[in-house]
Amino acid sequence: MNFLIDNVRVLTMNAAMDRLDDGCVVVEGDSIAAVGDRGLRERYPGYERIDGEAGILIPGLVNAHTHVGMIPFRSLGDDCADRLRRLLFPLEAAMTAELAAASAAYACCEMIQAGVTTFVDMYYFEDAIAEAVKAAGMRAFLGETVVDFPSCDSRVPHGGLAYAEAFIPKWLGDELITPMVAPHGTNTNSPEKIVEAHLMAGRYGVPMTMHVSEMDYELEHIRERRGMTPIAFLDSLRVLDERFIAAHCILVDDDDIDILARRGVAVAHCIGANAKSAKGVAPVKRMLERGVRVALGTDGPASGNTLDMFTQLDLFAKFHKTANKDRSAFPAAEVVRLATIDAAAALGLGDRIGSIEAGKKADLTLVETRSANMFPVYDPYSVLVYSAKAANVDSVFVGGRPLMRGKRLIGEGLGEARSRLSAGMADFRRAAESLLATISGRGRG
Amino acid sequence: MNFLIDNVRVLTMNAAMDRLDDGCVVVEGDSIAAVGDRGLRERYPGYERIDGEAGILIPGLVNAHTHVGMIPFRSLGDDCADRLRRLLFPLEAAMTAELAAASAAYACCEMIQAGVTTFVDMYYFEDAIAEAVKAAGMRAFLGETVVDFPSCDSRVPHGGLAYAEAFIPKWLGDELITPMVAPHGTNTNSPEKIVEAHLMAGRYGVPMTMHVSEMDYELEHIRERRGMTPIAFLDSLRVLDERFIAAHCILVDDDDIDILARRGVAVAHCIGANAKSAKGVAPVKRMLERGVRVALGTDGPASGNTLDMFTQLDLFAKFHKTANKDRSAFPAAEVVRLATIDAAAALGLGDRIGSIEAGKKADLTLVETRSANMFPVYDPYSVLVYSAKAANVDSVFVGGRPLMRGKRLIGEGLGEARSRLSAGMADFRRAAESLLATISGRGRG
Repeated sequence: MNFLIDNVRVLTMNAAMDRLDDGCVVVEGDSIAAVGDRGLRERYPGYERIDGEAGILIPGLVNAHTHVGMIPFRSLGDDCADRLRRLLFPLEAAMTAELAAASAAYACCEMIQAGVTTFVDMYYFEDAIAEAVKAAGMRAFLGETVVDFPSCDSRVPHGGLAYAEAFIPKWLGDELITPMVAPHGTNTNSPEKIVEAHLMAGRYGVPMTMHVSEMDYELEHIRERRGMTPIAFLDSLRVLDERFIAAHCILVDDDDIDILARRGVAVAHCIGANAKSAKGVAPVKRMLERGVRVALGTDGPASGNTLDMFTQLDLFAKFHKTANKDRSAFPAAEVVRLATIDAAAALGLGDRIGSIEAGKKADLTLVETRSANMFPVYDPYSVLVYSAKAANVDSVFVGGRPLMRGKRLIGEGLGEARSRLSAGMADFRRAAESLLATISGRGRG
Repeated sequence: MNFLIDNVRVLTMNAAMDRLDDGCVVVEGDSIAAVGDRGLRERYPGYERIDGEAGILIPGLVNAHTHVGMIPFRSLGDDCADRLRRLLFPLEAAMTAELAAASAAYACCEMIQAGVTTFVDMYYFEDAIAEAVKAAGMRAFLGETVVDFPSCDSRVPHGGLAYAEAFIPKWLGDELITPMVAPHGTNTNSPEKIVEAHLMAGRYGVPMTMHVSEMDYELEHIRERRGMTPIAFLDSLRVLDERFIAAHCILVDDDDIDILARRGVAVAHCIGANAKSAKGVAPVKRMLERGVRVALGTDGPASGNTLDMFTQLDLFAKFHKTANKDRSAFPAAEVVRLATIDAAAALGLGDRIGSIEAGKKADLTLVETRSANMFPVYDPYSVLVYSAKAANVDSVFVGGRPLMRGKRLIGEGLGEARSRLSAGMADFRRAAESLLATISGRGRG
């Protein structure tokens, strides 16, 4: 399908950061054919015209770290100390392939409604999740979790390796889905299995993702056993390279940052989830100054309670201005870069997505400026970072295919996804409420 | 009008923090007549029934500090250093009574849509603003600014005092509007005029609000001239009491906190605006531990870029958990208290609003749980703090009067308010863009 969007403010996010206040973007098939001002329209007379209504058109947002199978955990014991080990890990025994897929389908609806077009996932049953994501039409890197204890999709420790060995070749070459292997963390995998995952990723030429330097007890664990930081430890295993996506990297020192830069590792920074769990604020300014590639992520719906990248833009600006004691640090345009072109580059997709330029895939998000919170617009970057919410997203396209138009999802609606998820959650919900009652020592959490 | 809302989760925010998962709230005239479970409905057979659709019913949110006249400034030079003195103060010369009123009417639409029912304002032309707020049906404390230079509504310094002398008696006794006087700051008023404002507030028995301990240069200014902190200085003037609403209080020491507690001062904490301008995180945990009364505010739309208290709930939890390095600090229910019953108590309205209890004014906000971001609901407080957005607000009542139903404003719509504001902004916009060009030294900010 060929179409054009005009009467729109286009933030191209190209190298020159060109901005067209009365722009026009032409889409042919799955790609952007032309970008220009309003006059461009006349050169494409037969194309369907979408009126941007003075909204803001940006490259689809990239969510660089999440766990789409975890919608059933959201709002459960949020303020509970050591929540991961006391609540989340035990409850994951109640996860099934069907529930993970239903959660993923729901999460895709939520992300599309929030203007996300590409995401990086780490969870169990990733093959079932891939089917759901494919049906939703989103672009994704999907990583099968490897962990050193039996999990919901493996009776043996590190069973994710065998799962990935079947999962990766099945999806290799798919236009939208990139299969991956995802060792859970430096303290939840043996060194041998981390190396094995790395070799597998290399064999198939796919990325690999892992939680890195997120938890204080993770740092202690590696320091006690290896006498170094998690990042130095991973580097000693020779697994860090440009295909490595390291989630979090909160507790890092300057040597760690130099390693990340030297190896070309992509950092998926999840400010919302990190702040909610009081883990600290990753030194992103120093990372960028030293040349580390940084993208932003929401973390899973159990951790950050949202899959919405607009929330992250706002939180990122506020936390990093405060951490650097400088209101001019990270001006809004730079924050938008981190969720679009910089994220695409970090994930190795910089030649395909992340900016609105002829030849790139037509992954586009149209944000309306009709709503109360979106007026006035002196600076559209400012409006996106400090004012816009997921609810302002009007239309979303992935590879030229419309996934939402006029705030209505195309394809399976949210209602259907929610009915399916809610019905599939009955056993999980009972297990959750019972465990929470035990932990909190009272009837209700 | 008499009505009841049922099929709803009621968070009463009463002293016992009672929560009714299948509750019913009955409203008679401007007040809450009864609160109970679903069975209550049968006792009020003739009352209009509003189906809460399993949403969450809370006391209307309180925004304890804003500047509703400043919508025209939003998204203007956000990341500019020393923005207040370089951009905002000079541009205020272009403000008029008509523009302030149009902005206030727009701001009321935006706040109602975000579930706010009561707010505390400080700006110029407050009489014109009061007319707009009255028409919108919101509850508000409206403070006329006093500042030591000529302003948009006064040719002489401190002209706000004469303005307030006419404004306060005009609105005294109004059911919804409480008129006030509002000295701008400790460094922007002479001590004599601060005392004069305090005496005026006392004479009329109305509150008074002021920016306190917000800016580093404010602290320097007072230290150089008075050899003390702004709060110690205000205390030496004997102007601090239970009618004093101190906005910000970021840069405070333990002695300051003790003064605030001893005098019964209410602190309006604006985490979003404070973080965006990198001013720091006020030590709210210590304030509460020492008995200071704290409420939350958005600050003006130029500063925080939003009038939405849901944003503040989320930011508050994340910034203060991080500042205290404790994920269990400020559990969600406690954060909701700060924007409802604790705020009402801080403003001296604890016997009238802030909780859902028989006899209180029917200021109510119904938040839907249909949308993608609002599922599942294990803990409704968690959902309100970590997931809910202004866009999830379904219905809003002030004193029993519906201001929004089914996400549609009642009375003047947003479209009309926006047309009026936008038309009134023509001169302001030219002045703004010209000043911004001068400051940034390029054609566009």
